[in-house]
Amino acid sequence: MEAATLSRIGLAGLAVMGQNLALNIAEKGFPISVYNRTTSKVDETVDRAKHEGHLPLTGHYNPRDFILSIERPRSVIILVKAGAPVDHTIATLSEHMDQGDCIIDGGNEWYENTERRIQQANQKGLLYLGMGVSGGEEGARNGPSLMPGGSYEAYKNIEDIVKKVAAQVEDGPCVTYIGEGGSGNFVKMVHNGIEYGDMQLISEAYDVLKTVGGLSNSELAEIFDEWNRGELESFLIEITADIFKVKDEYGDGELVDKILDKTGMKGTGKWTVQQAAELSVAAPTIAASLDCRYLSGLKEEREAAAGVLKEAGLKEDVGAARVGVDKKRLIDDVRQALYASKICSYAQGMNLLRAKSNEKGWNLNFGELARIWKGGCIIRAVFLDRIKKAYQRNPNLASLVVDPEFAREMVQRQAAWRRVVGLAISAGISTPGMCASLAYFDTYRRARLPANLVQAQRDLFGAHTYERIDRPGSFHTEWTKLARKSAAALR
Amino acid sequence: MEAATLSRIGLAGLAVMGQNLALNIAEKGFPISVYNRTTSKVDETVDRAKHEGHLPLTGHYNPRDFILSIERPRSVIILVKAGAPVDHTIATLSEHMDQGDCIIDGGNEWYENTERRIQQANQKGLLYLGMGVSGGEEGARNGPSLMPGGSYEAYKNIEDIVKKVAAQVEDGPCVTYIGEGGSGNFVKMVHNGIEYGDMQLISEAYDVLKTVGGLSNSELAEIFDEWNRGELESFLIEITADIFKVKDEYGDGELVDKILDKTGMKGTGKWTVQQAAELSVAAPTIAASLDCRYLSGLKEEREAAAGVLKEAGLKEDVGAARVGVDKKRLIDDVRQALYASKICSYAQGMNLLRAKSNEKGWNLNFGELARIWKGGCIIRAVFLDRIKKAYQRNPNLASLVVDPEFAREMVQRQAAWRRVVGLAISAGISTPGMCASLAYFDTYRRARLPANLVQAQRDLFGAHTYERIDRPGSFHTEWTKLARKSAAALR
Repeated sequence: MEAATLSRIGLAGLAVMGQNLALNIAEKGFPISVYNRTTSKVDETVDRAKHEGHLPLTGHYNPRDFILSIERPRSVIILVKAGAPVDHTIATLSEHMDQGDCIIDGGNEWYENTERRIQQANQKGLLYLGMGVSGGEEGARNGPSLMPGGSYEAYKNIEDIVKKVAAQVEDGPCVTYIGEGGSGNFVKMVHNGIEYGDMQLISEAYDVLKTVGGLSNSELAEIFDEWNRGELESFLIEITADIFKVKDEYGDGELVDKILDKTGMKGTGKWTVQQAAELSVAAPTIAASLDCRYLSGLKEEREAAAGVLKEAGLKEDVGAARVGVDKKRLIDDVRQALYASKICSYAQGMNLLRAKSNEKGWNLNFGELARIWKGGCIIRAVFLDRIKKAYQRNPNLASLVVDPEFAREMVQRQAAWRRVVGLAISAGISTPGMCASLAYFDTYRRARLPANLVQAQRDLFGAHTYERIDRPGSFHTEWTKLARKSAAALR
Repeated sequence: MEAATLSRIGLAGLAVMGQNLALNIAEKGFPISVYNRTTSKVDETVDRAKHEGHLPLTGHYNPRDFILSIERPRSVIILVKAGAPVDHTIATLSEHMDQGDCIIDGGNEWYENTERRIQQANQKGLLYLGMGVSGGEEGARNGPSLMPGGSYEAYKNIEDIVKKVAAQVEDGPCVTYIGEGGSGNFVKMVHNGIEYGDMQLISEAYDVLKTVGGLSNSELAEIFDEWNRGELESFLIEITADIFKVKDEYGDGELVDKILDKTGMKGTGKWTVQQAAELSVAAPTIAASLDCRYLSGLKEEREAAAGVLKEAGLKEDVGAARVGVDKKRLIDDVRQALYASKICSYAQGMNLLRAKSNEKGWNLNFGELARIWKGGCIIRAVFLDRIKKAYQRNPNLASLVVDPEFAREMVQRQAAWRRVVGLAISAGISTPGMCASLAYFDTYRRARLPANLVQAQRDLFGAHTYERIDRPGSFHTEWTKLARKSAAALR
């Protein structure tokens, strides 16, 4: 099992993601050493390498042999659970590593943990990368989207590998050096937040079409297939079409109807929402998707609430809506609403990235980020090419929604978008993501907001002062006294 | 300036809030010592005490004299900027304090800072309280709402004082022992988050009435005055009516129209949203109010976006809406929409408190919290008595919206609520808070959500597994394979 010659790279942590990424690397012609604490996983991976094409992969049962089997400067990818297991794995492996060697964490790690580990690694003369990996198990095996951030020198050491291993799209491999520090993890986190938003918006489109439009699963499959040939073309639309086609093996009809409506989640969506708040960036569509996951979890509470609150003719409303609904127009409206809502969600994600990039001096290239998301990852979509081009046209774009192309698309779609949301509201069907996107759009494109009133309130009760639209300076007013005076004058 | 006899309590930090609270305490008959690093503030406070009724207040110029002038066990309120200044003040004062003495932080402090300081104080044999104080400068002077959390023993030492100093309502003073640890600060934080939501919802009501309904400031003043005599009766509605009455001293019309629509904010709203995410609680109305403050700050971006995006007949839409609008009905609808939206916002805040209470074992009494918010604080309202009663009826209430009384009110108001939000959406006027509340309501009262689709997607690309509605267990499906098979069978 020992390598005769040294491997080009190493990978530790052989759950399915790790196995798949190792096999992908080996398949691209880079000899790889693999290691896992539970040794059966090593054997499993070696076995798979043999059966999936006699790939140049060698298994190791102890950390020292593993590290020593890699050529210097060593690059070692670790794919273990985020948090303490990463620290533990680093401690185990770095003991045997030398100056200039690099550890590459491929997990969904909180970016500040990566920044701490970069410092700790540097103290030992080691390099460090936090590399977001998107695409799930399938992507890891056949071409993920990779978001490496941290040491540029370490990136250069593996650039030839990651460029071959990543998904390939017409304008290159889906990998780029993201920036310093924890930028790779941060970008992956926002990618996941955007993914939450996309999934929520699709589920709302499904809900409106099914509940208001009365569409069957086979009609839904057809429509999503059709949408996947147009502007919405993307992995998530494609798999949604597939989902509606799968029959239930335990009974009649399609499986999707038998799935419990309780959604799980991991940490990245939550972090995205918390970071948006931290950086004073509005990300309501992403937040709405997170809220829906929380509320979906309260299944028993919802059932009880439905009993208490499903009165007052809401059911009749849905019926009425259905009666008056032109199915074909509804489908087309929902497509447009979905697309417009999606643009707003991506605008939020990109602006969160910009805020963080400014704070940390990461100098993120937003066009490049959109490009490397075009393939391999869960949010891959034709649409991302449009985002890439928007940022190429104007790297300082304030928001995607004011890019001339997107602005035109938004304006074209807004009537349909307003119809869908309005219809859902009158039918008692919640579309929190679409609503949040629309409110975001209508707030952002408003030169004058009613925030003047809020500012007046704050000045009245907290003496927070206010600015005026017609003269410079900071003002405070004795509101209550003046209001009483003016009321008295009127009497 | 030295006290002949010992004071009952001390207060350090004499900005306006500190001065006012000290004078309030003195006025209630409790001799108080005051101290401030900048000594002019001490003189100012002593001077005010003299002129506001020869109140029993003594000023001190150094920490030692200040502390020694207070009877033991000493209770010392500090009102300085949250964060490092609090630590600094504690260090300065505690040097002269003895076993059993207590420091009471009255600032808007992050609750974890309070929990750290409780431990540090305990190590020195000192007691500690983190006490939320709401009501602004005016409340501090004449009766605030007080939310003390931490050492129960320390609370008992000041109970007679705070019960006199707090605002008085028909069912008692607006103070209660909140719970252990940082609970007092946490409850105050959520209070502020709810306050953000209230202010946002009022500004949306204003926007719809003004922009869609075409109401003048004097009509708005009248309506808010009228609303303040009904179910919406509250401090914020009352001051909003006052604001519309104040004339601009620099020109024609009312001052409110001259105020720049950029809103400031402090940390508590942000923390509320971050904590909601942390605890898996949906708080979309509060989050929407925070987002609007962020977006209001982007005045120049909004003006640019308005130029790019104010096409496509939105203006005509507003015109059309106005033409078709029955003013009287719109006003009544907006009132109902505001009330229903407010219930959802409070439901979110209370459920956030419940989640934290469960996590920390604080055993919060939600009825009592509603009661102490009935007076003194910014969100004081008749409505809070209804919340108090809801939790008295059922201390384990899952959500305010399923309390029989509130549920009935929601059902009665939902048609108006849907009309207002729908009208705003078709007019291109954003009502993010009302929309968020409505989406929250419609999601929470839905027995079956489209989350089944999200769960199917997660299982497809991440093998996250799913549950079924009709049998126990955890399932995984080879979606893509089965979809292809079933598609092939159809051909």
